[in-house]
Amino acid sequence: MAVRVPMGFEIAAVTAGLKASGRPDLALVYSPYPLAWALMSTDNIVKAPCVSRNRSRFTSGAAVRGIVVNSGNANCATGERGIWDNEDMAGAVASALALARVQDMLTASTGVIGQTLPVDRIRAAVPALTAALGQDSGPFAEAILTTDTAAKQANATLRGGSRIVGIAKGSGMIHPNMATLLAFVLTDADVGQDELRAVWPGIVERSFNQVTVDGDTSTNDMALVLSSRQIGADRQEFAEALEEVATKLASKVARDGEGATKLLTVHVSGARSGAEARAAARTVAGSNLVKAAAHGADPNWGRILAAVGRSGAVSDLANLRIGLQGETVYQGAALPFDAAGLSERLRTEEVIIEIDLAAGEAHGEAWGCDLSAEYVHINADYTT
Amino acid sequence: MAVRVPMGFEIAAVTAGLKASGRPDLALVYSPYPLAWALMSTDNIVKAPCVSRNRSRFTSGAAVRGIVVNSGNANCATGERGIWDNEDMAGAVASALALARVQDMLTASTGVIGQTLPVDRIRAAVPALTAALGQDSGPFAEAILTTDTAAKQANATLRGGSRIVGIAKGSGMIHPNMATLLAFVLTDADVGQDELRAVWPGIVERSFNQVTVDGDTSTNDMALVLSSRQIGADRQEFAEALEEVATKLASKVARDGEGATKLLTVHVSGARSGAEARAAARTVAGSNLVKAAAHGADPNWGRILAAVGRSGAVSDLANLRIGLQGETVYQGAALPFDAAGLSERLRTEEVIIEIDLAAGEAHGEAWGCDLSAEYVHINADYTT
Repeated sequence: MAVRVPMGFEIAAVTAGLKASGRPDLALVYSPYPLAWALMSTDNIVKAPCVSRNRSRFTSGAAVRGIVVNSGNANCATGERGIWDNEDMAGAVASALALARVQDMLTASTGVIGQTLPVDRIRAAVPALTAALGQDSGPFAEAILTTDTAAKQANATLRGGSRIVGIAKGSGMIHPNMATLLAFVLTDADVGQDELRAVWPGIVERSFNQVTVDGDTSTNDMALVLSSRQIGADRQEFAEALEEVATKLASKVARDGEGATKLLTVHVSGARSGAEARAAARTVAGSNLVKAAAHGADPNWGRILAAVGRSGAVSDLANLRIGLQGETVYQGAALPFDAAGLSERLRTEEVIIEIDLAAGEAHGEAWGCDLSAEYVHINADYTT
Repeated sequence: MAVRVPMGFEIAAVTAGLKASGRPDLALVYSPYPLAWALMSTDNIVKAPCVSRNRSRFTSGAAVRGIVVNSGNANCATGERGIWDNEDMAGAVASALALARVQDMLTASTGVIGQTLPVDRIRAAVPALTAALGQDSGPFAEAILTTDTAAKQANATLRGGSRIVGIAKGSGMIHPNMATLLAFVLTDADVGQDELRAVWPGIVERSFNQVTVDGDTSTNDMALVLSSRQIGADRQEFAEALEEVATKLASKVARDGEGATKLLTVHVSGARSGAEARAAARTVAGSNLVKAAAHGADPNWGRILAAVGRSGAVSDLANLRIGLQGETVYQGAALPFDAAGLSERLRTEEVIIEIDLAAGEAHGEAWGCDLSAEYVHINADYTT
């Protein structure tokens, strides 16, 4: 999909030779302007050097000029050498772009854990990478993929003409040691860093952090928003559009989960708080039993109810309602329904589970995918 | 397996007709003596009436005389009717045994969620059940099974001649709506209720609560210890033997996980606390990616490391050690190892993962099983 990046951004991708497939694996976002930005990254105690380095820069509060991303190698659990390899990747790009400070270039890596990053190949590819800088986000979206089956982009245009373009990859800890969810959102809306940092954590909580493929949080996850501040925009409209883009990317990531044949969307309403609603939605979307039932088109509300129960979200059990594909199958007690007919309606690419906890006014969503024998094959039938 | 129950107990099982298979499904433990007891049960907010009723009795502190258990129907999410059906099951047995109080008879149910308990069939079977009371625990161990492939018993004899006999079933939330882990441990060791209640929670934390099959906590889980106090016993020796019996049952439950072909045993050492050690062990044993790797005999330490990281347990990453089948594959960084040879040694029924967090002195264990395509088939290829 050819999507033009927002004003004040240039973007590129090339093949550095990190992926065995020979597909593009080195990607760059660059701006001639200092970028306002906000970052959310993995809370796994085992973190790749790119995560630690970006966090350190984030804490300093300074602007950045872009991010270089490699796929095919997560550069994680690679010891002290990994720290310097990561720094070298940033340095090679900063130097080619004549940036004043190497710290102005952020980094991200995704791929196999525990293998040394072939930084020589990256260095060798950097001239071609910077020479390729242009306006089409498509090659970048392709180059950051690992086991994904499709590139993931979403965008929005605001009333004043400013734009938001989001690009993501990954889902769950996936294929042999692959590390995971990366999301990059670029905008030319004139929104300052304080504003971005105020809204981004909540948006990530409600979108990317509500995606579950197999519950394994990666060592390399990050979600980044960058603003070139070129075009005036309404704060409220911007925040809503940013959340819409993040939410679209999140559901695309879930739909492309490993071995997935269906997207599960779980809507929880009637919760005491948004956090409880999201916890319940996430627990249901992440339940192996619910996922397997979705795979088998089994209208199995018992598993949904049990998952809600263990999520810790408070509900009024006498009034709790469960809907599947728009049909209420449980409300305080089992309701009669046409199991064969409902099963037929579950044989589709999107399964929608609605749960009303009947305990409050808050709501939340989560996205997941079905659990297929293919998932097991992908993750088992492989030898390191 | 024919195991004689401890002194002061009688045990029985019959077929009431709750299981479609026609196998035994109603079981009873009874004592002519008031029994000291301790209980741990599910913290799922959705609880079956048997769980709530036993908890209420537990809180009263009074002794009990036994427990009646049905399989084939969890009597959960059955509304107010389920509460009375559960009471009726206890009442039918209490009446047949001429107990002074119906509350002296505890209850447990396991099986399909959301279907009315056929309490008439249970009532009709109670005379045969009480008539069958005897000394062999085997029929009871068979009758409480649902999708289990084998009965699970473990026992120990103390120096003074007192005995501990444990019986368990289940593992994870399993086959279509089946509810789950039940463990009953009987002893004639003269250990009072206060003592039992002091040691049981810790033992259950370290044993049954460290079993993970698919992470779905059931609505009906319970682990019960009953003592007839017939034979003097050393407190310390008793506590150790009780933990040994519970641990053996826990690993048997894990080994018999749905679709499992391998037992995963995860030993964590070098933790700051037992709770952190257990959390790390549980997270590794419960990781879909680790489980799939075990299934495929893949010596994939990256997934183990990532799971340790997200468990929240503090480790010294520079010294953290991971061993697989006795061979160290990671220590602060990847170590060279013979991947093909190690993969060969992973093609066995027991996979042992050792993790030294290098951060303290505490240790903990967890038990799980591999994730097979068979698990998906069992849980997906079914229509309610």
